[in-house]
Amino acid sequence: MAYKDVTVKTLLQTVEDKRFENTTIQLDGWVRTNRDNGSIGFIELNDGSCFKNVQLVYTSDNPNISILTSVRTGACISITGQVVYTPQGKQPLEIKVLSCQLNGDVMDDYPLQKKRHSFEFLREIAHLRPRANTFNALFRVRNVLSMAIHQFFQDNDFMYVHTPIITTNDGEGAGNVFDVVTHDQKDENSFYGRRVNLTVTGQLHVEPFALAFRKVYTFGPVFRAEHSNTIRHASEFWMIEPEMAFCDLNENMDVIEACVKYCIQTLFDKCPDEMNFFNTMIDSTLIERLKHVLHSEFKRMTYTRTIELLKEAVANGHKFENSNIEWGMDLQSEHEKYITEQIVKGPVFLIDYPKEIKAFYMKENPDQKTVAACDLLVPAVGELVGGSQREENYERLCNKMIKLGIKDELDWYLDTRRYGGCIHSGFGIGFDRLLMYVTGMQNIRDVQPYPRTSNTIKY
Amino acid sequence: MAYKDVTVKTLLQTVEDKRFENTTIQLDGWVRTNRDNGSIGFIELNDGSCFKNVQLVYTSDNPNISILTSVRTGACISITGQVVYTPQGKQPLEIKVLSCQLNGDVMDDYPLQKKRHSFEFLREIAHLRPRANTFNALFRVRNVLSMAIHQFFQDNDFMYVHTPIITTNDGEGAGNVFDVVTHDQKDENSFYGRRVNLTVTGQLHVEPFALAFRKVYTFGPVFRAEHSNTIRHASEFWMIEPEMAFCDLNENMDVIEACVKYCIQTLFDKCPDEMNFFNTMIDSTLIERLKHVLHSEFKRMTYTRTIELLKEAVANGHKFENSNIEWGMDLQSEHEKYITEQIVKGPVFLIDYPKEIKAFYMKENPDQKTVAACDLLVPAVGELVGGSQREENYERLCNKMIKLGIKDELDWYLDTRRYGGCIHSGFGIGFDRLLMYVTGMQNIRDVQPYPRTSNTIKY
Repeated sequence: MAYKDVTVKTLLQTVEDKRFENTTIQLDGWVRTNRDNGSIGFIELNDGSCFKNVQLVYTSDNPNISILTSVRTGACISITGQVVYTPQGKQPLEIKVLSCQLNGDVMDDYPLQKKRHSFEFLREIAHLRPRANTFNALFRVRNVLSMAIHQFFQDNDFMYVHTPIITTNDGEGAGNVFDVVTHDQKDENSFYGRRVNLTVTGQLHVEPFALAFRKVYTFGPVFRAEHSNTIRHASEFWMIEPEMAFCDLNENMDVIEACVKYCIQTLFDKCPDEMNFFNTMIDSTLIERLKHVLHSEFKRMTYTRTIELLKEAVANGHKFENSNIEWGMDLQSEHEKYITEQIVKGPVFLIDYPKEIKAFYMKENPDQKTVAACDLLVPAVGELVGGSQREENYERLCNKMIKLGIKDELDWYLDTRRYGGCIHSGFGIGFDRLLMYVTGMQNIRDVQPYPRTSNTIKY
Repeated sequence: MAYKDVTVKTLLQTVEDKRFENTTIQLDGWVRTNRDNGSIGFIELNDGSCFKNVQLVYTSDNPNISILTSVRTGACISITGQVVYTPQGKQPLEIKVLSCQLNGDVMDDYPLQKKRHSFEFLREIAHLRPRANTFNALFRVRNVLSMAIHQFFQDNDFMYVHTPIITTNDGEGAGNVFDVVTHDQKDENSFYGRRVNLTVTGQLHVEPFALAFRKVYTFGPVFRAEHSNTIRHASEFWMIEPEMAFCDLNENMDVIEACVKYCIQTLFDKCPDEMNFFNTMIDSTLIERLKHVLHSEFKRMTYTRTIELLKEAVANGHKFENSNIEWGMDLQSEHEKYITEQIVKGPVFLIDYPKEIKAFYMKENPDQKTVAACDLLVPAVGELVGGSQREENYERLCNKMIKLGIKDELDWYLDTRRYGGCIHSGFGIGFDRLLMYVTGMQNIRDVQPYPRTSNTIKY
């Protein structure tokens, strides 16, 4: 299938063999910049096929010179031109324009001028910012990272499952859910005959599939109606939730480590231009940091040991916002960062958390105080992945769910422990946060195509 | 990464080289059937790694004979055993059981017994039906088809875009949307400061990305609050919506044809067992029908010509439920099926529909009566894909949107025609209906993991 043969991407692949030397080609794309000095002019054209632009060169004798000299940033043009390879030049090739046609001009108020715009400003024009360099790079990496996720799990025999978005399960009843209603009838919950909400996790729905297909994963949107106006919270984001039968906590961590490394390696392999851009423009430690993770063996440390180390740190004068370190506490981001950055100096799994601060479905350890949970911490961001071995014991899980008052509504979930249950584990990766991590972008609003955060929605 | 080395899938790959001849291996899986005649017993085990089961053979001298003889359909076991290749047998290998451990028994009320259950019954236990043969096959094909979609678009340089689920865009104001609200405050629309709903299409959000990245696609859930209690309607389903800059209607159809053929070929290549199962158990014309599509050149026919042919059919005595054929009418499924099955006898694109019955964003043809739309019809189901060239003319699109009263709310969408617009086209494939088509399954409730249709929601 070839619906347009030549693109900037395919052209750049001919730099070695110079296949198009002096060949006349057609290109369609958008003007990034246009400057001329009277006798000669240069247009930077991006045609969407790759991150890089191509330089068009035109001279004053061009039959379409009036279009060429007047065409503005953002306009869409089609040109014919001759390919000239310039191995000594800053760019490996340029196009000598023979003709130019204006497909779509830009109105005078085009907001994306040839200057640096703030991310705040660009957020206001989410539908246009893909044309800005940072977002050009960002959404390309988002695509490649999405596919890396699929490829990793498919290569390892996981089956992709589309868990439902509209559900009766409100997580653990925490209340921070979006309800789904129809207004076409008096009873707003009449469509399904009961109250429903947007999913906060696909895990409970995917576990039954793991007990049939062994290794499965979800990759889809989840929702949190939290009014957390931070740079790391969005009300809609994509999650990856793998689940594996016959898999304990240690094997679970093996898979997490392999998955994170596979994603990073894929970005280095497939997006070198974009990754270099982020390293240059966004975070100069990015590539070094990711390479360090790629070549690290991820350490494993118990929560209990972590608390000891944090207490020692406080005793030795380290100041945390919360320096009241007690076994049983929920670790804050500052504590997690201290452990991974100052103590381990690399990626580390914290395991065996107090059962009171973790979800009901996690497997109770023999000590009856902790559960077989694992959180992966990495330098610069803290928690990146959370997982656990699941409680496969019917009685124990059932009792927990009765205490939480969720047994009746989730009775079907208990069936996975009634009928042919087994040791199984899984984890969750917030895709958007992973994307922030691998690009150095600091605000979740700047890694989503149309970010969804509280109080702001335009599209 | 190898967290469990031997599975039924990997075992079946050794049938040629007999690598595991007389080797002792471990297998974990679920009992499908268990029968013994006193001295020898047979367990059909499925371990989730592939559609096929493996046969376990045990004799009365086994140290775990009491477990082996009593273990029931649905129970989860781990065994060690010796691999015996049986090239002359019905199955290419079997496992002589050395030991057996019961991981998870089934309670007495296990609803999936060793007999044929109706699809209606199985819908009531959506969380358990993946263990039934049809759904074992179905969800494997769902996975492979999902990946075929991604692979096709990635191989052809399309970029995957996650368009938002929560949106202010209610399609064309048709009213069949789910609203999204929070109940934690007095004003249920306070979270975003305005009324929002679940997306009915990602197209409007992805078009701006096509004007930056050239070729893009969405693949995610969409929602319709229609009370259509039919076998083809679900209120939540997955859609694929590609969008291409510099692409007209004809090129659009080229891509659709290539995409459909790629998906079918991939299923034949990757799911032969499952496809044979569907052909044997669900629809005996399935494989023949799909091969016919694979080897057909998809025809193209105008809506106007279609109306002529339908009128001729009526004149010649063909009875439709609606035999009142008039130019301007919306074609019903019976008309579409007649055209593809009786007239064309193969896949056909109908093009150039009356503008009144198609969406506002479609490109008006020079006749000013029709728009550059294309619907792909295929035998047995009728419409499979719908697409169009988009109206790139700002004035014309703007006027249409003013008439519909949607200009203000979608002003950002008009920016794609204000700033560097170009000819572009796209299409939509309902993923679940495509899956019905390629498996022969008749009810959309039987191709979704947890189907969402009006009045029924349990999970």
